[in-house]
Amino acid sequence: MALEAIKWNENKLYILDQLRLPLETEYITVNNVKEGWQVINKMQVRGAPAIAIVGCLSLATELSQASFKDKHELLETICEKLQYLVTARPTAVNMKKAAEELTSFTKNLYNDKVSVTEMVDSVISWCQKMLNYDVSTNKKIGDFGADSILKSAGGKNVKILTHCNTGSLATAGYGTALGVVRSIHARGCLDQAYCTETRPYNQGARLTAYELVYDKIPGTLICDSMVAALINSHKIDAIVVGADRVTSNGDTANKIGTYQLAVIAKHHNVPFYVCAPTSSIDLNLAVGKDIPIEERPHNEMTDIAGIKIASPGISCWNPAFDVTPAELITGGIVTELGIFKPAELADKLKA
Amino acid sequence: MALEAIKWNENKLYILDQLRLPLETEYITVNNVKEGWQVINKMQVRGAPAIAIVGCLSLATELSQASFKDKHELLETICEKLQYLVTARPTAVNMKKAAEELTSFTKNLYNDKVSVTEMVDSVISWCQKMLNYDVSTNKKIGDFGADSILKSAGGKNVKILTHCNTGSLATAGYGTALGVVRSIHARGCLDQAYCTETRPYNQGARLTAYELVYDKIPGTLICDSMVAALINSHKIDAIVVGADRVTSNGDTANKIGTYQLAVIAKHHNVPFYVCAPTSSIDLNLAVGKDIPIEERPHNEMTDIAGIKIASPGISCWNPAFDVTPAELITGGIVTELGIFKPAELADKLKA
Repeated sequence: MALEAIKWNENKLYILDQLRLPLETEYITVNNVKEGWQVINKMQVRGAPAIAIVGCLSLATELSQASFKDKHELLETICEKLQYLVTARPTAVNMKKAAEELTSFTKNLYNDKVSVTEMVDSVISWCQKMLNYDVSTNKKIGDFGADSILKSAGGKNVKILTHCNTGSLATAGYGTALGVVRSIHARGCLDQAYCTETRPYNQGARLTAYELVYDKIPGTLICDSMVAALINSHKIDAIVVGADRVTSNGDTANKIGTYQLAVIAKHHNVPFYVCAPTSSIDLNLAVGKDIPIEERPHNEMTDIAGIKIASPGISCWNPAFDVTPAELITGGIVTELGIFKPAELADKLKA
Repeated sequence: MALEAIKWNENKLYILDQLRLPLETEYITVNNVKEGWQVINKMQVRGAPAIAIVGCLSLATELSQASFKDKHELLETICEKLQYLVTARPTAVNMKKAAEELTSFTKNLYNDKVSVTEMVDSVISWCQKMLNYDVSTNKKIGDFGADSILKSAGGKNVKILTHCNTGSLATAGYGTALGVVRSIHARGCLDQAYCTETRPYNQGARLTAYELVYDKIPGTLICDSMVAALINSHKIDAIVVGADRVTSNGDTANKIGTYQLAVIAKHHNVPFYVCAPTSSIDLNLAVGKDIPIEERPHNEMTDIAGIKIASPGISCWNPAFDVTPAELITGGIVTELGIFKPAELADKLKA
C-alpha cells in the first residue's frame, strides 16, 4: 500500500511524525488548530503542499468539534485561525494561499442562505478536497516532468538527482519532484535516483531515502557536498527539486542548498527543473528577493537526536531556504498545467 | 597554550583522538607502526601533513624499542614498514613522499660508516624534524595567503570561508588554509571565518569549529549546502582550502566538496585558494584524474555516534575526496615558497 503521511478519517486528522522517521513509523493525532500550528512549526509535517493541507485539516477537525452561536462568529473564528496558521512557517506560500482561498470561500458561504451547520460542513468538505486534489496534481507534474526528461535523454535510462523531500511525505501523496522520479520509474526508464542528505534536517537521508526504499525505487544517498563530484563521475541527466514559493518572474525559494545545486547544474550543463503545483506559485510577488526566508534554531545544525555533533561555543547560520534565480532554472518549472520557462510562467498562468 | 594534536616526548608518540573531539579531549599512545596505520586508517588522526608525521613517528617509536641484528635487517624493516604505512589512506601524497624520502635517507645511512644504533638514532631524528619543520612551513603559507587576500580586499576586514579541517588538528600545528585564517586574524583584519560542516565526517563542525572557539577567532558554522546562499547574502572575500595531493598541472585532490566550492566560487567571482605545503605536491602525476580516490564505508554517512540518521536499506556513495581542476583555482596555490598560479607551479618548483 502506498505511503500515507496525512490521514483524514471521520473528521479526525492523523499525521505521520516525520521527526521519528525513518526508524519509527508513528502517527500522531492533530486535534485542533493550535496542534496543527505546532506540528508544522516543529516540522513533524513539512513540505509546502503538506503544510497547507494539514493546516486546513486541523481547522476542519476543530470546527467539527466546536459549536458557534451564529455565522458571524464562525466566519470570524475561521479567518483568525487561518491567519494564525500562516505564521507557523513563513517561507512556503501554500498555507497563505490556502488561507486566502478558504477565507474567500467562507465569506461567500456567510453571504449565502446556509445554516451555521451547513457552513461548517462546507468548510470541512473544502479542506478534505484539498487532500484529494493534491494527489492528482502531483501525478500530472510527475508525468510532465518525466516526458521532458526522457525526451532529452533520447531513449536511454536516466539518472536523476533530487534534493530534500518532495514525495508522499511532503504532499498528500506521490510527490512533486519525487513524483517525477516515480513517473520515470513507473515507465521502467530510471537507472538511478540520487538523493542529497539535505542538511541540517536530513530530509533526504531520512525521508526521501525512506520513500525510495519503501517503493523499491533504485536509489543512492549522497552528501550535499558530493553533487559536483557525482555529476563529474556519474552522468546525471537532470536535477529535479520542489518549491516552497515561486515568484512571478520564476525565482524560486526552496530548501537551503537548492540555489547551489542550480549553480552546479549550470556549470555542468545539466537541466535543472523546479516542480511546483500552481498553489506554490505566488504571482503577487515580483521577484525572489521579496520572499521572507525563515532562519531556524542553531541546534538543528549542532545536535542530532540529542547528541552534540559540533564544537560547543561555535556560532551558526541556519537559513531554512534559499532563492534560486529564474535564469538557472534551465529545464523549466513543472506544474500540473505543463512545463513553463520561468519567463513565460506569469503570462501562461494568467491565461 | 596552542593546541597540540601530535606530541612526541622521549621517543613516545601521543595523538589527540580526533574521533572524540570536540566533546572529549583524549590523547592515545601510538606504540608501533601497526597502531600508527590504525589511527590513520580509522581517522583518529587525519589531514595530509599530520598523516605523514604520525606515520613516520610511529615507525620512530617502534624502532626505539626494537633491536636489530645488523644494518641490513634494519633497512629491510624500515622499507617494509613504510610501504605498509602508505596503504593506510591512499589519496594523500604526503605519506608516500615521506616514505620515499625516508627510504632514500635510510639507504644512504646503510652505505655510510655508521653503526646500527647510530642508524636508528638518525632515522628517529629525521622523523622528529618533520614535526618541527611542518609548523614553520605552515606559518609561511599562512602569511603568503594573508598577504594576497588582504591586498585584494583593499584594506577592509575580510570574510573567509574554509572547508574541512586544515588547522592544528590536520598538521603539526598552525595549519595550512586555517593558517591563512590565523595569520589574517593575527593582523586584526578578520571579520569572520566561516567553516563548512564537511559531511560526512564533520571535520568542519567538530574540528575547525573547535579550533576557532579554542583560539577565540570569530567563526560561524554553515552546512555544506549553504555556501552559495552565504556568498550571495554575506560578502565572502575568499575561499581557502587545503590539499591532499596537487598534481603537476595544478589539479588538486582534497576533501569531498572542495570541487563544488570551486565551481560556486567561480560563479560568484570569489577568489579560490588551495593551501598546500610542497610536500603535498606530486610532480610525478601529470593530472588530477590519475589520483586514486578513496571510497569510505557507508556507515560514515548513515550513522553518527551509533545513531542511525538515514533510512535503513538505502545505498550510499561515499568518496572521501574529489579533484578540483586547476582552472578553478583562481586565487592560486599557496605554498611555503610563495603563491603560484596552477600553470606555473611545476616550473617554479623545479627551479
